[in-house]
Amino acid sequence: MTTDTPVQLRAVASPDQPDVTPALENLYRGFEQELLVPLWTEIGELMPAHPRSRAVPHVWRWENLRALAAQAGETVPVGRGGERRAIALANPALGGRPFATPTLWAAIQYLMPGEDAPEHRHTQHAFRFVVEGEGVWTVVGGDPVPMRRGDFLPQAGWNWHAHHNATAEPMAWIDGLDIPFQYVTEAQFFEFGRDKISDAERTTPARSRSERLWGHPGLRPLSATSVTLDSPLLTYKWEFTDRALADQIAVEAEGYGGTVEPGHAAVRFANPATGADVLPTIRAEMHRVTRGAETAPTRETGSSVYQVFDGSGTVTVGGTSWTVTRGDLFVVPSWEPFSARSEAGSTDSDSGALDLFRFSDAPVFEALQLDRTQHSTNKGN
Amino acid sequence: MTTDTPVQLRAVASPDQPDVTPALENLYRGFEQELLVPLWTEIGELMPAHPRSRAVPHVWRWENLRALAAQAGETVPVGRGGERRAIALANPALGGRPFATPTLWAAIQYLMPGEDAPEHRHTQHAFRFVVEGEGVWTVVGGDPVPMRRGDFLPQAGWNWHAHHNATAEPMAWIDGLDIPFQYVTEAQFFEFGRDKISDAERTTPARSRSERLWGHPGLRPLSATSVTLDSPLLTYKWEFTDRALADQIAVEAEGYGGTVEPGHAAVRFANPATGADVLPTIRAEMHRVTRGAETAPTRETGSSVYQVFDGSGTVTVGGTSWTVTRGDLFVVPSWEPFSARSEAGSTDSDSGALDLFRFSDAPVFEALQLDRTQHSTNKGN
Amino acid sequence: MTTDTPVQLRAVASPDQPDVTPALENLYRGFEQELLVPLWTEIGELMPAHPRSRAVPHVWRWENLRALAAQAGETVPVGRGGERRAIALANPALGGRPFATPTLWAAIQYLMPGEDAPEHRHTQHAFRFVVEGEGVWTVVGGDPVPMRRGDFLPQAGWNWHAHHNATAEPMAWIDGLDIPFQYVTEAQFFEFGRDKISDAERTTPARSRSERLWGHPGLRPLSATSVTLDSPLLTYKWEFTDRALADQIAVEAEGYGGTVEPGHAAVRFANPATGADVLPTIRAEMHRVTRGAETAPTRETGSSVYQVFDGSGTVTVGGTSWTVTRGDLFVVPSWEPFSARSEAGSTDSDSGALDLFRFSDAPVFEALQLDRTQHSTNKGN
Amino acid sequence: MTTDTPVQLRAVASPDQPDVTPALENLYRGFEQELLVPLWTEIGELMPAHPRSRAVPHVWRWENLRALAAQAGETVPVGRGGERRAIALANPALGGRPFATPTLWAAIQYLMPGEDAPEHRHTQHAFRFVVEGEGVWTVVGGDPVPMRRGDFLPQAGWNWHAHHNATAEPMAWIDGLDIPFQYVTEAQFFEFGRDKISDAERTTPARSRSERLWGHPGLRPLSATSVTLDSPLLTYKWEFTDRALADQIAVEAEGYGGTVEPGHAAVRFANPATGADVLPTIRAEMHRVTRGAETAPTRETGSSVYQVFDGSGTVTVGGTSWTVTRGDLFVVPSWEPFSARSEAGSTDSDSGALDLFRFSDAPVFEALQLDRTQHSTNKGN
Repeated sequence: MTTDTPVQLRAVASPDQPDVTPALENLYRGFEQELLVPLWTEIGELMPAHPRSRAVPHVWRWENLRALAAQAGETVPVGRGGERRAIALANPALGGRPFATPTLWAAIQYLMPGEDAPEHRHTQHAFRFVVEGEGVWTVVGGDPVPMRRGDFLPQAGWNWHAHHNATAEPMAWIDGLDIPFQYVTEAQFFEFGRDKISDAERTTPARSRSERLWGHPGLRPLSATSVTLDSPLLTYKWEFTDRALADQIAVEAEGYGGTVEPGHAAVRFANPATGADVLPTIRAEMHRVTRGAETAPTRETGSSVYQVFDGSGTVTVGGTSWTVTRGDLFVVPSWEPFSARSEAGSTDSDSGALDLFRFSDAPVFEALQLDRTQHSTNKGN
Repeated sequence: MTTDTPVQLRAVASPDQPDVTPALENLYRGFEQELLVPLWTEIGELMPAHPRSRAVPHVWRWENLRALAAQAGETVPVGRGGERRAIALANPALGGRPFATPTLWAAIQYLMPGEDAPEHRHTQHAFRFVVEGEGVWTVVGGDPVPMRRGDFLPQAGWNWHAHHNATAEPMAWIDGLDIPFQYVTEAQFFEFGRDKISDAERTTPARSRSERLWGHPGLRPLSATSVTLDSPLLTYKWEFTDRALADQIAVEAEGYGGTVEPGHAAVRFANPATGADVLPTIRAEMHRVTRGAETAPTRETGSSVYQVFDGSGTVTVGGTSWTVTRGDLFVVPSWEPFSARSEAGSTDSDSGALDLFRFSDAPVFEALQLDRTQHSTNKGN
Repeated sequence: MTTDTPVQLRAVASPDQPDVTPALENLYRGFEQELLVPLWTEIGELMPAHPRSRAVPHVWRWENLRALAAQAGETVPVGRGGERRAIALANPALGGRPFATPTLWAAIQYLMPGEDAPEHRHTQHAFRFVVEGEGVWTVVGGDPVPMRRGDFLPQAGWNWHAHHNATAEPMAWIDGLDIPFQYVTEAQFFEFGRDKISDAERTTPARSRSERLWGHPGLRPLSATSVTLDSPLLTYKWEFTDRALADQIAVEAEGYGGTVEPGHAAVRFANPATGADVLPTIRAEMHRVTRGAETAPTRETGSSVYQVFDGSGTVTVGGTSWTVTRGDLFVVPSWEPFSARSEAGSTDSDSGALDLFRFSDAPVFEALQLDRTQHSTNKGN
Repeated sequence: MTTDTPVQLRAVASPDQPDVTPALENLYRGFEQELLVPLWTEIGELMPAHPRSRAVPHVWRWENLRALAAQAGETVPVGRGGERRAIALANPALGGRPFATPTLWAAIQYLMPGEDAPEHRHTQHAFRFVVEGEGVWTVVGGDPVPMRRGDFLPQAGWNWHAHHNATAEPMAWIDGLDIPFQYVTEAQFFEFGRDKISDAERTTPARSRSERLWGHPGLRPLSATSVTLDSPLLTYKWEFTDRALADQIAVEAEGYGGTVEPGHAAVRFANPATGADVLPTIRAEMHRVTRGAETAPTRETGSSVYQVFDGSGTVTVGGTSWTVTRGDLFVVPSWEPFSARSEAGSTDSDSGALDLFRFSDAPVFEALQLDRTQHSTNKGN
């Protein structure tokens, strides 16, 4: 990426540009020599009336992702140096970089039976989300955390972590990180840890210690004296997320609201020590759109990646619509309107709901007062 | 309490006081006429080397409290004006005022079968804690919340609330409020609500709407857009508190800490929207001291009220020790050392643990940077 | 203050009280034996519809205060034990205690030529305000801070401090502290320091080091790495306060607002490191009411003490009005409406403005979400 | 910038990469078709051991900048569309984009006698800093703010602003903005305002209204009720900045510290309403290195742009040193060590100090807990 392209200005006649004269061409040559660029040739791109993302909406099909990941499982070893068998979404408009959006990384990770991914740590904030399968434990700071369908595991920056597959089956899940954000702002640190975790860490408990200390609603251990921007709870199990969504829909049915809009329940994964976002740079949410319901189109500054967790439906990003089903991933670039409609397919669960996992860079925008949201009224409901 | 006592200064000879002379006596008469008091006669009491509480340690026996509350149930009606059949602890050193400590109110409240306590609201922050029995629902802002042994129900200031006993049995519980604190700082507002709650509010759901929206660990509803200092979760059920304490003890047993000190598990009731104390002026905690364990003596600025929830043991406050058992209440004044030892009695549960519910004025001290704590090393463990 | 008055309940017949029967009298005797007090006999005083202060409005005349302070200067030595020649306002309705209001202490302090007040520190937050005279330096943590008419010197808790009068004239000023608040909440610590400050501290610089590091608008020294609730700026000189008030009035005259209301300029003394109140428990402000202007009646939870800094006028607290002039002090109890009118007397400055210094316990109320304000529209302007 | 480059992976044999086999090549073709990129080929660049900036250190000479800006003044009109006659530094390693660093924009702006720059607003946070000249007023929300040598004018996002040159001389200054940061995160909004400001706004007051309301040390107007992340003070005049630096050096000379390190005074421009950084995404500071002094090499995450305000000296960034003098601008990329040495030239002021204005993206890093700093001990002092 580090290039040394000389500044090259074209003196072009356009309504907003000064007339092309010998004096102007001379001036522009002076600019180039001194490594200068005028605002007036760039303002349209740099300071648009509203965000116009360089990224484009796109869908990646889970079926294809999983097949390629399995193929990588046969072909590419996991170990020190490459670190992880992770394969990232590359937004088609971001120059072939492994960036799902300008700030977010999303990858499928794959671990073969008995394999270990070695310990390391990095400033990049990360999480795992499991759309299918089980059998891997992520060991965070010595605490083995199980991974099963529906579980969300935040992994705040600079914590040591490794993965081990304790079963006879391969397992796939998705990783979300702020790699592109830290790449563009140049904040990254990385350290190798131990090549092998200890036998004690190789246990496969049903509940991690983090859950036992922090996984009780509204209860904080007195032994915890310091609070950070990172969540001390290392997994948010599907059992609780599912119940929270079902509860919202039940409260709405009784006439007391509780949902975001009719037929649209949603929870945010929160740091139980602060109530704030689970990671300093990444927001994560689970949405449930009930059978036949549709969300109102919404635009937000900042970008999101979604994965269909359950059900089927149609999602619309900007002017494009896709039919999506379990495991499919798609991106919503900054300020593109997004809506989703649940349309139960023949193979879906009885409830007919569309469950969408979402992560975004919203905490960055909110911390810097750059967040804006525009809701449309949903006429369809 | 409003008195008009004239200022009366005595000119006394003491090591720290000026010599008694006619000039001094003349000066002091001048002070009295002008409603003035010199610092030098008062500094010892007003600015001590460390807090010397006007309150004293004291124990109230649950057996006696409950018997008197039942007697009140037969004698005193509940209704508009008196508002609640609540009987408050009066610290023996606080002049007969219904103040458990200089800042905290603690009372037993009693509701007969079928009775209602009428709706009102007040700026005083409150909670209910249930040491035995069940059958009453507290209706907060239209949301009926059940009350059962072990449940903790915060009731932040200025929310409408009423109670109704839906069963054929009387029920008792304790109320904690910051009435003395708001009395001395003069912050109180109070309004009567409806004399009767609606039939819809008279339902007896097993779970309140507040639990269904906010009672899932680390998950916050997206529909909640504003956050206050008050907890949106209106009950902390015993099931979760008990499990959190048991989990801490299990983690400790595995060698990973998690407890406050060996054999001493504890959780704080927290606002799930912020992680902060459940009420702006009141901290609430549940402590479990395992069989035979003893807590290290600790002094803190600010005062506490404890109720024994389960088990038996010895508590030491300052220089005095008491044997306490289920339901007994006692106070720990500011800066008095406190410790507790679990001593299972013949009638106690199998675990032999001493479970102590505690509330205190700690959030006031922390918000104003007046908190100090002094731990002793516990040689007994 | 520590009394052991037994609880004494009277069974009285009143509209809100239960009928006096033998059973009730028996119940009340039971309460007394067990140190219990029912809510229903106390609710009117403890939980009023709005704050009804135990304190009353009152004015202390500066002329009398100063004369008595000078008399004390001749009669009472300053030294270790008594610590300060400070004489406090005792609200006539607070039982002869040296409490201007239920939470605030206000005293005149007096130092004879060449005298020292010995070094000490305490958790009570304090300030000095100078209505006339000069010549004393307050040495805070080794930094000598001059004191002159109009200067406001915050003195956050637990900083070492001493005073020395470097001149041949006596000097008086007022001290404000949160002594009553810390007395009722029982938070106080106190330590003696050195009996004599060093010669280096006995210098009389025109500007303290705190001013040179923190007294530049909007500029913070990079060397300051930690921030506390206490202001690092140890004096707010009159020169700046006066100019800020004059600027507000000029901006208003140009038609751009900037004042609280027409003819009423006001500034708050703020911690330059945080923008928050200058002390964790005390707010301090300077108000200027221009010639002939009148402030709109305002009620606030919490209490204030005012001192007239310049000019003359009429102040109205609740239903009582007083004519006040330079140096006079008066109190505004919680929720009493307050207004002030400037009425230039023959001996006042040319501007004819009424300058009022005010301090209050507002930060306590705001930290705990207990603040309420009610403004009347000022028809008089 | 929006490109549609297809993903192109090269299967290369390297120590950290899997062996090139037909299976691997087949796998990589599959990745390309599905718009996927593996982590293991990219991890070195994306997750380095510490930040390795894409930007390089570079110096722009003020003499050349000013000459080209003057030439632009003759050649390029200012008006709606181009908006500003601003010419930006383009880091030689950032592909010819007008980005001084990956997150920061720095430009020289130039206004001819009598010219106006039309009103607009944008979410990008901005400031002006004046290294020489005077005569332009920036009108912010209707408040005309003068600009003179040494003045720093923050311009928080989404405030209307225009510039007008009220004199017969051209004037140049530098603009700093977070344009690259908002470009990469895609947060930008922009609106045109009025083409002409009013006659009332065309006045040339010596002090803006913002200064009169907020420019008094530690004093906040009571009329200000809401607080934002943006500074309400619209200019930080050189008079105060200069005095603050001189005061630090004087306090240091008396033996009481106050400087960052010996001979190195520094102030941060702070929001007086909060004490925080003057802009949500940009930190701004003024540093003074006394004659002959040298700062200790320091590395920080995030990037900075410096301008020499006064004096001469040598600056070292990474492995490169430059001699710099008044007006010269240079950049310090993320994690590059930086130090400066004052070396008074023959034409410099008597003091011989090197005054450096600096701005950086530090608030972004601190808000997201990504800030790290590494100080070397300065052996040179």
